[in-house]
Amino acid sequence: MKKLKKRLFDIVQVAGDNDVASRVFDICIICLIFLNVVLVIAETFSLPKALRECIGYIELASVAIFTIEYVLRFWTSDLLYPEKRRIVSRLKYFFSFIAIIDLLAILPFYIPYIIDIDLRVLRILRTVRLFRIFKITRYTTALNVIGDVFKRKKNQLISSIFVVFLLMIIASVLMYNIEHDAQPDAFSNALSALWWSVATLTTVGYGDIYPITAMGKVLSAIIALLGIGLVAVPTGIISSGFMETIHRDHAKEDGEEEISYCPHCGKKLK
Amino acid sequence: MKKLKKRLFDIVQVAGDNDVASRVFDICIICLIFLNVVLVIAETFSLPKALRECIGYIELASVAIFTIEYVLRFWTSDLLYPEKRRIVSRLKYFFSFIAIIDLLAILPFYIPYIIDIDLRVLRILRTVRLFRIFKITRYTTALNVIGDVFKRKKNQLISSIFVVFLLMIIASVLMYNIEHDAQPDAFSNALSALWWSVATLTTVGYGDIYPITAMGKVLSAIIALLGIGLVAVPTGIISSGFMETIHRDHAKEDGEEEISYCPHCGKKLK
Amino acid sequence: MKKLKKRLFDIVQVAGDNDVASRVFDICIICLIFLNVVLVIAETFSLPKALRECIGYIELASVAIFTIEYVLRFWTSDLLYPEKRRIVSRLKYFFSFIAIIDLLAILPFYIPYIIDIDLRVLRILRTVRLFRIFKITRYTTALNVIGDVFKRKKNQLISSIFVVFLLMIIASVLMYNIEHDAQPDAFSNALSALWWSVATLTTVGYGDIYPITAMGKVLSAIIALLGIGLVAVPTGIISSGFMETIHRDHAKEDGEEEISYCPHCGKKLK
Amino acid sequence: MKKLKKRLFDIVQVAGDNDVASRVFDICIICLIFLNVVLVIAETFSLPKALRECIGYIELASVAIFTIEYVLRFWTSDLLYPEKRRIVSRLKYFFSFIAIIDLLAILPFYIPYIIDIDLRVLRILRTVRLFRIFKITRYTTALNVIGDVFKRKKNQLISSIFVVFLLMIIASVLMYNIEHDAQPDAFSNALSALWWSVATLTTVGYGDIYPITAMGKVLSAIIALLGIGLVAVPTGIISSGFMETIHRDHAKEDGEEEISYCPHCGKKLK
Repeated sequence: MKKLKKRLFDIVQVAGDNDVASRVFDICIICLIFLNVVLVIAETFSLPKALRECIGYIELASVAIFTIEYVLRFWTSDLLYPEKRRIVSRLKYFFSFIAIIDLLAILPFYIPYIIDIDLRVLRILRTVRLFRIFKITRYTTALNVIGDVFKRKKNQLISSIFVVFLLMIIASVLMYNIEHDAQPDAFSNALSALWWSVATLTTVGYGDIYPITAMGKVLSAIIALLGIGLVAVPTGIISSGFMETIHRDHAKEDGEEEISYCPHCGKKLK
Repeated sequence: MKKLKKRLFDIVQVAGDNDVASRVFDICIICLIFLNVVLVIAETFSLPKALRECIGYIELASVAIFTIEYVLRFWTSDLLYPEKRRIVSRLKYFFSFIAIIDLLAILPFYIPYIIDIDLRVLRILRTVRLFRIFKITRYTTALNVIGDVFKRKKNQLISSIFVVFLLMIIASVLMYNIEHDAQPDAFSNALSALWWSVATLTTVGYGDIYPITAMGKVLSAIIALLGIGLVAVPTGIISSGFMETIHRDHAKEDGEEEISYCPHCGKKLK
Repeated sequence: MKKLKKRLFDIVQVAGDNDVASRVFDICIICLIFLNVVLVIAETFSLPKALRECIGYIELASVAIFTIEYVLRFWTSDLLYPEKRRIVSRLKYFFSFIAIIDLLAILPFYIPYIIDIDLRVLRILRTVRLFRIFKITRYTTALNVIGDVFKRKKNQLISSIFVVFLLMIIASVLMYNIEHDAQPDAFSNALSALWWSVATLTTVGYGDIYPITAMGKVLSAIIALLGIGLVAVPTGIISSGFMETIHRDHAKEDGEEEISYCPHCGKKLK
Repeated sequence: MKKLKKRLFDIVQVAGDNDVASRVFDICIICLIFLNVVLVIAETFSLPKALRECIGYIELASVAIFTIEYVLRFWTSDLLYPEKRRIVSRLKYFFSFIAIIDLLAILPFYIPYIIDIDLRVLRILRTVRLFRIFKITRYTTALNVIGDVFKRKKNQLISSIFVVFLLMIIASVLMYNIEHDAQPDAFSNALSALWWSVATLTTVGYGDIYPITAMGKVLSAIIALLGIGLVAVPTGIISSGFMETIHRDHAKEDGEEEISYCPHCGKKLK
């Protein structure tokens, strides 16, 4: 039993180099995730009834497989932290980011069977199935560098978002006061103006709302130009984050730089 | 009296680690600032009369609290620079950026009681209340790095804005001459064309004004492409500013590497 | 014969400094490539029949010249890798990127003579002629630095595209669910919403599709702001790539600093 | 005479610290330049006749002053390069960038008096007056850093523009072929499609032209995403350019780093 559990643990974990069974398991799960994403998109089209039923069955099968996967992962999770007590290890796993994603990927299916639910809430619940796409993050290490840069620069990025937010609030209230009389429909309240300020600061500019008065255009021009500056800030922060990563990597690679000599006695340092 | 003043000074200043009263005061002020921002936005909606009155009372209370805060801060401001004469210290505080913001946050309320004022001017005055949002900057140090980068790169940023400005003027006069005959309404004068050039250079592109002649499209394409280049300049400047900050921080952090000693002869290295 | 072949090889290859014939050949081919690009654009206009015929003749001549060029290049390709066996050398050349471009530049012309072909497919085939423009890459080394940066940063760039892709899928399915009832025509299925999410994340914002419900606008604002952050990532990656290039170049240029000698003892420094 | 010439030379050149007359001259010219820019913009409005006449007189006076300035500069230009022969020095000045700008600022006024000219050409000629704005560059050194970065990175920037250009050509011909049948008016030829591709790659997105077919939207999405990548390239190039400037400046400032010791014999180096 213990051996079987260890084997199952190895299979559900991301595969090592030689474990064929584990690798097959990984690939199946990845394919199933992508299939589910395609189905979620497909469901938004008006399909013939037969196809819709077929999608329903695939959905059923997917939930079944993901549920089995979740149960296996949870059962074997005490092997993840062998030095800890079983219950602690399982709780630690249960509240990890990836386990919550796994749970959210299957939960929406079971809820209607457990509690009575409104049809509207059900529809939003079904959207949660989309979170299955995040299950893919388990299999990719490529995002680590990017995630690492964001984590290291978190404080500065939040600060810059805060500044953008301040600017947006001020711009939208000013714009509301300037444009409300000229365009009572478009700028009906400060939130409409906020929608304008988002479109302007991010330079999306859909063109559904824009100032028509001279004063409004002047403010819009200032906001758009400030926007460029403020947009430059996250870019600068992230650029410098990537540069730091490179410098650190260089430091590791250029190990021979570490070997230096004392300028006073000439002996090798470190 | 002197002791009370010192205590009040400590409370109104940003709290230290153990000063509970001061911390409570800070949190109350911050909440009040956010409440005021929400109210300013809420006021732009068409609300029932009862709610509007209620907002009026909160506004009244806010002004009262901010006034008391301002008076306390001003009264205790001589403790900010204890080495200076009282009058100098108070004047120095009075003309500091944060004190002016504090004053602008309450002044618009009092002006109509002091001097007779036009209803139109009053409305603009009320917009000044928005400046309350800047009071929040007292409590956050997160913006310092960003502000520091802007300050250090001020000259280069102003230069790049000057170049953008030159380009905008030239583009708009050229565009006016090219498009005026084809679209006399849209490009009625050089300022309309300036509005177009802002929308194009910042890549907002609302779509309310754009060239329709062949020549105009060629100019627009050149301006849009130049725009990318010129927008790249502030990004580059700010990026390099953040990089500089990192280099300096590294120099500080790696202090132990800088001042290390040779293990053989014990002399300081570098 | 062998000497003639060597001479032809030298001519078709990018010219050295003193080889006049080779340089003339290069310039002729470059001019012909640009002429072809102009013709491809010209063909999209409604031209008088005489001019259209004239273009047909130039097209014919171009194909003839490019065919001769291709045959010569293929025949002399065994001189490219003189240390290899003739057949290996030729196969290696045949499957090189630039040789495939050369082939694609002439193939569409010959296919209708070889196999019976639908008129529709023919039209698409003709578009392949556009690939002639890539023949120009043989003559420019200017793109190497840029290409080099992209190659070195490939993994990070693909990761960031993957993140953008994930975000786009999630945003479009969410937006479809939010906006479908309000705008059944614009957001008819998840792919329409995907079109919206591309326009928003890239900040193009044509204005043909945008949310009108409050919820949709909130989501759109979040996506647009996230978009800025995510767009900052490739910029950051590429910036750091160019910085790396500079550092490496400096290391090369400053070679004399790296390998210098102590003026006192004559030993090599670092 | 020679002394007067030297004095005039000092006055027309950018002022030193103590030369009051020269400084006054500089400020007058700068004011006149700005006045002219304001007038060029003002002229595009429909003004009363009196005001228009007034502008005419100011224009006349401006040309007179700029002409005198130009003559003085040219006359004294042999003092700019005292080691050269007078004629060489003057020719060198005559063909310098700033002298050509000075000439273009006054020439359009004189041409109609010299040769008979079409009214249409005259109007374009009058636009050249705008170049007066560039005269301002003589008085600002702030643009030097930015100009320096562009100069050093010229090759890479041109390469990236070339890539953008290739992409634009290919995208527009493909888009023409895809969308022409669905929107014969909007995509009437490859140049209309080129206008679309500029608007998309620069993310301006006016919304006057966009694909409506599924294929066209797919291509547009690819182009928009590629656009972000390609736009990131100049930003990266310019960022790295500014970084280089900083590194060089640091090297100068951190003179004390240069003083190092030989790790072999311990003696001071350099």
